[in-house]
Amino acid sequence: MTTRTGRVTCDLTISADGYSAGLNQSEQRPFGDDGGDGWGDKLHAWMFETAEENRAELEQLAGAGAFIMGRNMFGPVRGEWDRPWNGWWGDNPPYHTSVFVLTHHAREPQPMDGDTTFYFVTDGIESALAQAQAAAGDGDVAIQGGATTVNQYLAAGLIDELRLHIVPLTLGAGTRLFEGVPPLNLEQVNSRAATSVTHVTYRVH
Amino acid sequence: MTTRTGRVTCDLTISADGYSAGLNQSEQRPFGDDGGDGWGDKLHAWMFETAEENRAELEQLAGAGAFIMGRNMFGPVRGEWDRPWNGWWGDNPPYHTSVFVLTHHAREPQPMDGDTTFYFVTDGIESALAQAQAAAGDGDVAIQGGATTVNQYLAAGLIDELRLHIVPLTLGAGTRLFEGVPPLNLEQVNSRAATSVTHVTYRVH
Repeated sequence: MTTRTGRVTCDLTISADGYSAGLNQSEQRPFGDDGGDGWGDKLHAWMFETAEENRAELEQLAGAGAFIMGRNMFGPVRGEWDRPWNGWWGDNPPYHTSVFVLTHHAREPQPMDGDTTFYFVTDGIESALAQAQAAAGDGDVAIQGGATTVNQYLAAGLIDELRLHIVPLTLGAGTRLFEGVPPLNLEQVNSRAATSVTHVTYRVH
Repeated sequence: MTTRTGRVTCDLTISADGYSAGLNQSEQRPFGDDGGDGWGDKLHAWMFETAEENRAELEQLAGAGAFIMGRNMFGPVRGEWDRPWNGWWGDNPPYHTSVFVLTHHAREPQPMDGDTTFYFVTDGIESALAQAQAAAGDGDVAIQGGATTVNQYLAAGLIDELRLHIVPLTLGAGTRLFEGVPPLNLEQVNSRAATSVTHVTYRVH
């Protein structure tokens, strides 16, 4: 067994009450009822409207060697892959590397422009992590979300570094980070305030 | 009707998953199962072990003109006041002003050393706030906790400024800030990282 240099990281944007998405997620509103008028604009405004002052966090977020995401984060299609769907991000997704999508329904790998390839993993989170680590080489593997997927990896003790981006609103309901996860001993390794988001990085012990 | 200059503030220490206290609160462990060995030492360590670097927040926290707290924050006695109990803080509590305790059971005011007096309010949160504002004059009224009380004031739209002190651990269960509170539009007015706590101040709109 070799020692890996890459870590398992997770960047997640959450409301002040810990939700990464509101209720009623749909193709039109992938982050559900988040107080905005679509496309998660209120939760994720810090990435777009104030990108310049958050450049360090955005670069870190994009820097992983491979990504893992849940089926709901990949798209709104449930059950069998009965209609074409290649993610929310158009022909050239912002990943530019291998992305492993957790699903119960097998599907052939889907290459995209810009070196992104979506792989579909049907045999669980450990298998997805092993495949992502192989793809990442010495790079980090990023658990991309949503919170349901992140919670599974946290509960299994598989995340090394959790980077939260806490935005000034509450959702009151939805998919909540840490829900059902046993108590964790965290170490605050970095914390930085921007205008309308607070970035906190925890090492998970 | 006169315009008040004082605000209604709330300082609350919470875990990264939003709990202000764990399960199984008791006289020996007022903050319940918080991963420490008693007295809320892990949640509130930032106030004691690293007080010097958090001096600004501690002074702000103590600076209100009057305080309001829930019965559980005042003490472990439930139901009638059938045994002597004057709070967790000894003869000279750190408030040095009027403290209004929400309860269903009437009790005479309890003066303490150092100008703290505990008043017991049986007719609800609005009444407690009106009494505290009268006592505070132009000063702020601080909703002292616990989260159940804070959530009632948040849901009623009665808190102007929420100052969270987020510590690096999760509890997984207990009394959670924002639980049952409708979605809030917050404004991040200040955010500061200390070694093992992140302080975030929100204005509540």
